[in-house]
Amino acid sequence: MKKTYLLAPGPTPVPETVNLDMASPMIHHRTPQFSQVFAEAAEDAKYLFQTNQDVMILASTGTGAMEGCITNLFSPGDKVLVVNGGKFGERWGKISETYGLVPVWHKVEWGQCVKAEDLKDILDKEPDIKAILVQASETSTTVSHPIEEISKLTRDRDDLLLVVDGITAVGVYPLPMDAWGIDALVTGSQKALMLPPGLALVSFSEKAWKANESSKCPRFYFDLKKERKNLADKTTAYTPAVSLVTGLRSVLKNLREEGIDNVHKRHNRLARATRAAVKALGLNPVAPDAPADSATGLFVPEGVDGGKLVKSLRDDFGVTLAGGQDQWKGKVVRIAHLGYVDTFDTIVAVAALEMALKKFGHDVPMGKGVAAAQEVLLEAY
Amino acid sequence: MKKTYLLAPGPTPVPETVNLDMASPMIHHRTPQFSQVFAEAAEDAKYLFQTNQDVMILASTGTGAMEGCITNLFSPGDKVLVVNGGKFGERWGKISETYGLVPVWHKVEWGQCVKAEDLKDILDKEPDIKAILVQASETSTTVSHPIEEISKLTRDRDDLLLVVDGITAVGVYPLPMDAWGIDALVTGSQKALMLPPGLALVSFSEKAWKANESSKCPRFYFDLKKERKNLADKTTAYTPAVSLVTGLRSVLKNLREEGIDNVHKRHNRLARATRAAVKALGLNPVAPDAPADSATGLFVPEGVDGGKLVKSLRDDFGVTLAGGQDQWKGKVVRIAHLGYVDTFDTIVAVAALEMALKKFGHDVPMGKGVAAAQEVLLEAY
Repeated sequence: MKKTYLLAPGPTPVPETVNLDMASPMIHHRTPQFSQVFAEAAEDAKYLFQTNQDVMILASTGTGAMEGCITNLFSPGDKVLVVNGGKFGERWGKISETYGLVPVWHKVEWGQCVKAEDLKDILDKEPDIKAILVQASETSTTVSHPIEEISKLTRDRDDLLLVVDGITAVGVYPLPMDAWGIDALVTGSQKALMLPPGLALVSFSEKAWKANESSKCPRFYFDLKKERKNLADKTTAYTPAVSLVTGLRSVLKNLREEGIDNVHKRHNRLARATRAAVKALGLNPVAPDAPADSATGLFVPEGVDGGKLVKSLRDDFGVTLAGGQDQWKGKVVRIAHLGYVDTFDTIVAVAALEMALKKFGHDVPMGKGVAAAQEVLLEAY
Repeated sequence: MKKTYLLAPGPTPVPETVNLDMASPMIHHRTPQFSQVFAEAAEDAKYLFQTNQDVMILASTGTGAMEGCITNLFSPGDKVLVVNGGKFGERWGKISETYGLVPVWHKVEWGQCVKAEDLKDILDKEPDIKAILVQASETSTTVSHPIEEISKLTRDRDDLLLVVDGITAVGVYPLPMDAWGIDALVTGSQKALMLPPGLALVSFSEKAWKANESSKCPRFYFDLKKERKNLADKTTAYTPAVSLVTGLRSVLKNLREEGIDNVHKRHNRLARATRAAVKALGLNPVAPDAPADSATGLFVPEGVDGGKLVKSLRDDFGVTLAGGQDQWKGKVVRIAHLGYVDTFDTIVAVAALEMALKKFGHDVPMGKGVAAAQEVLLEAY
């Protein structure tokens, strides 16, 4: 017997009640019964996005909705400013290139957040840039980019869009779409929404819908104008992922009941507790200056093989954390705070990290990280 | 209390055990645990497709995989022959147009199947056509197109592909991809695979992979070459729909145990039983000459409002069938035989149809259709 714990930055654990809800008998998607489920989910998604705009629900993972942002807002030849501070920033650029856009790559060191003033300088030099493409939370580096600051560069310009990948940020920390003037916001089901992967949510501002009118990239499955039209009739253009939408309605109802501020506070508390633990253990955080509340990354101490550490945590201890991606492969551990994760999951993650580090020969004071986390976690009680 | 029955051509009922399997605790997708689930599903998918080629598993519905066929095999300007005998044939053409291909529309009357010799005539006149795009089963008209016949036109030509939408045909009746030389074959999870919607499966022949090399349409989320490369490492390019893939492994294991021939026989028996019932009741089938075993369509008798009939069947009797689409809206009822549907579901559907027709004032001899169905269904016992 070995119990298992999932604290990776997606997929995240699914609440047992939501799993059972999704296991309800299948219903047909062109019925008033499903339309009601769908409409309720779409309505509560607006609350989550803090927007009055429609939120489209797609049968794909987040990358599909990112592609939808590119193909529905731009045309081949359009110049876009890509904040490339990690694996997912890079993805914005790759999708742009695929569709013939001209990305202006702004490289940001892994572990650092982008500086809004640097983006301003680029925009001043290249006034024909049509959008800033950025992550709210760059999952690969556990960095939070300053979206509110960046939105000040775009919100008063009719010819410049702010397109935000909020896949590990929506439902984690404040990202009020309308208040900040975010033009396109994307999230996925398997992060703060605590559902299995397979759904993406995306919303456009009025400014974005205007850009959509002149956008010439080809799109069919991810035709968001068509989805918006269908949404008004409480349906989708193509068959929706019925069971996942059923789960979405459940989790959004729960999140709404918890209250978006409390949801944000919960993630922040778990993140601060984990950061306190990392500090107490004398480990180096990977994003010291602008950590996201979605996940906490730390460098594996000298002499410890990060790949083996993460593998042992998973296979020996039963605790699934995430390792590093790309240039940080084998060097980093990431502990997620996303979704259906609470006080004692965080204690488990920190305790397991301490024990695994000791097993791998690193001199760790057992319980010191746990104690530091406890001090923060106690706030909630 | 009212029990409900789902006999629409997708989504179809999900077996209770598979629902529970999909409700298992979430696992991370970049782990040996998930890789094993994924690899087993992908392997059994080859059995289902009757192919030695890789079968890619996508987090989308079938339409996404149809788009993937177009964008991964062709270039703007390519001429393709579209068999337009219903709503889904039309979709092939619309996707082609979206990506700048030049569809040669071959209109087929609703309820009729395409004639291979007519396609041959077109190909003879237009030798630069690069593919035939066709449905195996045109769900909107319940027609089965003669794929084996059509494959004889394409299989010996290096410059002509056969691209088949098998969404309501794969796992229903024989469509042996390798034996017939089908170049691209697509299906979706919510049909014969008896899963919730949200997964698409697609496989390419060697000839199709060769066409992929020179194809210039843009694609990112549906980049099948990238998916094939990842499949070799037992993973996907982007996050897979973990719970649905878990369900896919279960149903494919069951189908393999049942045996593909028996799976086909099961669908055929239910279809023949329903057709016998339709005939016994003196109703007119919509696809008299080439009915697919996926669903049986019939014209609603004069004087009965088909829309109200289907609504009453669903809301009063608890039996969800499908109405007609587009030009057949309000005129047609479709009874599906797809997936987790058996002898007594078919009896229920026929009995409910008889009762609902009588309720709507049509003179139906109660039980006559049921009796005709029973005679066929008894074969299995």
